[in-house]
Amino acid sequence: MAEAAARRRARGGGGAARRAERTAVSVETAKYIERNIPLYEPLNEETLEIIEANAETVLAEVGVNFVNNPAALDRWRDAGAEIDGERVRIPRGLARKLCETAPSRILQHARNPERNVEIGGDTLVCAPVYGPPFVRDMDGGRRYATMEDFHKFVKLGYMSKWLHHSGGTVCEPTDVPVNKRHLDMLLAHMTLSDKPFMGSVTEPSRAQDSVEMCEILFGREFVQENTVMTSLINVNSPLTFDDVMMGALEVYARNNQACIISPFIVGGAMAPTSVVGTLTQVLAEVLAGIAYSQLIRPGAPVIFGAFVTSIDMNSGAPTFGTPEASLILYGAGQLARRMGLPYRSGGGLCGSKLPDAQAGYEAAHTHNAVLLGGVNFMLHACGWLEGGLVSSFEKFVMDADQLGVLHHMARGVAADENGQAMDAIREVGPGGHYLGCAHTQANFKTAFWRTDLLDYKPYETWEEEGARDTMTLANLRMRRLLDSYQQPALDPAIAEALDDYVARKKASMPDAFI
Amino acid sequence: MAEAAARRRARGGGGAARRAERTAVSVETAKYIERNIPLYEPLNEETLEIIEANAETVLAEVGVNFVNNPAALDRWRDAGAEIDGERVRIPRGLARKLCETAPSRILQHARNPERNVEIGGDTLVCAPVYGPPFVRDMDGGRRYATMEDFHKFVKLGYMSKWLHHSGGTVCEPTDVPVNKRHLDMLLAHMTLSDKPFMGSVTEPSRAQDSVEMCEILFGREFVQENTVMTSLINVNSPLTFDDVMMGALEVYARNNQACIISPFIVGGAMAPTSVVGTLTQVLAEVLAGIAYSQLIRPGAPVIFGAFVTSIDMNSGAPTFGTPEASLILYGAGQLARRMGLPYRSGGGLCGSKLPDAQAGYEAAHTHNAVLLGGVNFMLHACGWLEGGLVSSFEKFVMDADQLGVLHHMARGVAADENGQAMDAIREVGPGGHYLGCAHTQANFKTAFWRTDLLDYKPYETWEEEGARDTMTLANLRMRRLLDSYQQPALDPAIAEALDDYVARKKASMPDAFI
Repeated sequence: MAEAAARRRARGGGGAARRAERTAVSVETAKYIERNIPLYEPLNEETLEIIEANAETVLAEVGVNFVNNPAALDRWRDAGAEIDGERVRIPRGLARKLCETAPSRILQHARNPERNVEIGGDTLVCAPVYGPPFVRDMDGGRRYATMEDFHKFVKLGYMSKWLHHSGGTVCEPTDVPVNKRHLDMLLAHMTLSDKPFMGSVTEPSRAQDSVEMCEILFGREFVQENTVMTSLINVNSPLTFDDVMMGALEVYARNNQACIISPFIVGGAMAPTSVVGTLTQVLAEVLAGIAYSQLIRPGAPVIFGAFVTSIDMNSGAPTFGTPEASLILYGAGQLARRMGLPYRSGGGLCGSKLPDAQAGYEAAHTHNAVLLGGVNFMLHACGWLEGGLVSSFEKFVMDADQLGVLHHMARGVAADENGQAMDAIREVGPGGHYLGCAHTQANFKTAFWRTDLLDYKPYETWEEEGARDTMTLANLRMRRLLDSYQQPALDPAIAEALDDYVARKKASMPDAFI
Repeated sequence: MAEAAARRRARGGGGAARRAERTAVSVETAKYIERNIPLYEPLNEETLEIIEANAETVLAEVGVNFVNNPAALDRWRDAGAEIDGERVRIPRGLARKLCETAPSRILQHARNPERNVEIGGDTLVCAPVYGPPFVRDMDGGRRYATMEDFHKFVKLGYMSKWLHHSGGTVCEPTDVPVNKRHLDMLLAHMTLSDKPFMGSVTEPSRAQDSVEMCEILFGREFVQENTVMTSLINVNSPLTFDDVMMGALEVYARNNQACIISPFIVGGAMAPTSVVGTLTQVLAEVLAGIAYSQLIRPGAPVIFGAFVTSIDMNSGAPTFGTPEASLILYGAGQLARRMGLPYRSGGGLCGSKLPDAQAGYEAAHTHNAVLLGGVNFMLHACGWLEGGLVSSFEKFVMDADQLGVLHHMARGVAADENGQAMDAIREVGPGGHYLGCAHTQANFKTAFWRTDLLDYKPYETWEEEGARDTMTLANLRMRRLLDSYQQPALDPAIAEALDDYVARKKASMPDAFI
């Protein structure tokens, strides 16, 4: 309450803002998932202890590289690490000790407080695909992504009931100069949606711009005291932290903004082929990265990230939704919880070129592992195609619909009197049917998950309507959603200030395209 | 060893048989899954106890109907149940007590002893789709199934590495009279494959025919002493046991052949809308059915079955791969294990009309629940389409490929020295890559599950090759498999005796088509 009031004060805004708020169309968004089911933990205590001991050995004996970052080396030296060139060897226990100041749960604020999310404990927050340079839909095929595509994805995310987060680089808008596109992307998240979002990490200065735009949107003091962005810091696996990502991390940590410290691993290429070996490297990298964030600012909010997939050893292609990736996802979750940290992994992953059966199998495998594996922040929850090269419009709405499955699974099993339904069993008896009984009448609206997309029609109806596959149905739904999109209200003074900031920043530098 | 020798003796066979065996093409079949991972058990002790207590209440107060089956009523009366018309009310604890003589693990023999399967404990045996009257492929579309289709599915099952079982009615061959088709179906399983199979349940006399054909294949004594068929006895939910299914069960139980006692439930129509209510009814039905099997022959091998899905409350259509169905699948597994019984549930289920993304999502949800939920016998593991109305050739090979995912997941996580891979991490170090390191070279062939179907190619290659979706790739693979099919060797004397039996039986009755 106090926060909302503070935000309103910070925003200022007068009659126009209030009018805009009154006329806003309400878009339903489910609360982030709070699991009422146990987790699946396939690694036993002995295996977890081996991984933890080996990760300390890796940090102490092999070490990690902090590249082009003399200040980072100084910080590590001061903290007690051994520095050799750019190599940082971290004595046993030091990194884990430093990680202890990181919070176990993060409240990320949205500009609409109803869309705030909590990341940690039993929660699962779903955010869309991140990073692809291409987009695909049935209408235009596969092509380089543009800012227009980016806008469409933000709008679809805003309208997706089961998606809690607007994400970050939902696609890479290649028609905007590379040094300016972060401004347009942030502006889109801030104005076309009211869900929480991610900041830029491609340069420390762009992270700083992200903070400054949030200060306009949320108020300067509010940003310093609260988390309003969760940003993605990838580790250059194996065991390398580059200056760009670390520079962005430094900006965010100093400003109390959340970062995901995320090894990005194609197993067999950037980590060993084995599950335990890969988890050892993941843990070493996360320990080093999160420890470093706490050297910048003790208490800075961070998330234990793991984006791990495996390689097709014949072609060298990355593969997704594979059993080895699932086991690593489960294991990394166990390791994160033992550190008391929020956990991020990928969801909706697939290697398929099309949103077809392969995409469905692979995405469902990952979705299931994410839910049962205790992930708190699921990036790529919807829209990911072709190993992350493509943001697919059809797969976006297909996956977004599937996220409802996870919400309903997470509700678990009610064993109260209504759940037991003994009256219904008595009422119906042998040979009867339940469609009309009192219990069914009272429960049918909420009893079962209902798709907004998939086909359950009789065969004859389905055929009369054109025998459409899921991709075709998703294309229709995507276009209907975009047609009915209405922008959420925003104080015009804030909108203007954001526009001014973006225009000023863009004018201050020449275009760059690499 | 003794069994194999006994079988060879029982079969007889001479030089021709031995020659046939020598020239047989070897088709690789993976051993049934033995899980090296924990199970997922979302229901807590209190909920399980409520379900168990309520199921006893249902049996004692509501009771079950045994229809058109005076002998069954006599058996129940003798056992201590209260009979009222066709209603059987079973005193608390009686059914559970009767179930105690059922074995916890079943060894089902195949004519090729290498293909024997164990059903129970930590195992998972995969069997194909069962029951659809239609088939579909890209070449011929959707159409009524014929015996030619049936033969193709049996051949595909024989050639599918991850499929352990040939199944039963892989499709319903509608071009053969209904009273004779079981003969042709069994003959196909016995001669076109050497994997274990299921018997006919559509009439008690057809169950008897199944037993007699097995006596020809395995030898009469062998059949009386060993399980050579696992057959599907559906309960007419709610709480009704019809004379046809019970008649078949009686034949199989008397002959020591395994039956799955399986409530077939569309939740909301044939059971309450709630998970706990549905599980209560499932347990009551299984308790009554398995108890009845033990009244026929104490020690008769039986499987706790549960085929449960939910309904789309708007259209009344059954839905598949839904979260409620998964929770019921997990819960039923917990109940089965508490009874010490093998557990059967469905896998690869979907409501989709096509093997598209919907089919992929839904089948993967069910596959995952089956693996983690402790299912011992997965019927419909591959080929199920359109809510079970259609056996799909393309989905058969798609799902069959996916079963490899389950095999690899079930291997779990090795934490030995090779699994730890510390030498590799030391060898590669920060910034290196693992592709060429010694550990990768030693492990890459077996480290990761490899698809025989899905596409991992570079985009450009994929496009040059025709931009094929998964269905198209599956169609190609299906045709390639059928082109390279070679019949497994069978003693010609046995083959002739089987042919004679079928011809004689067919000649003994007029054709019937309903």
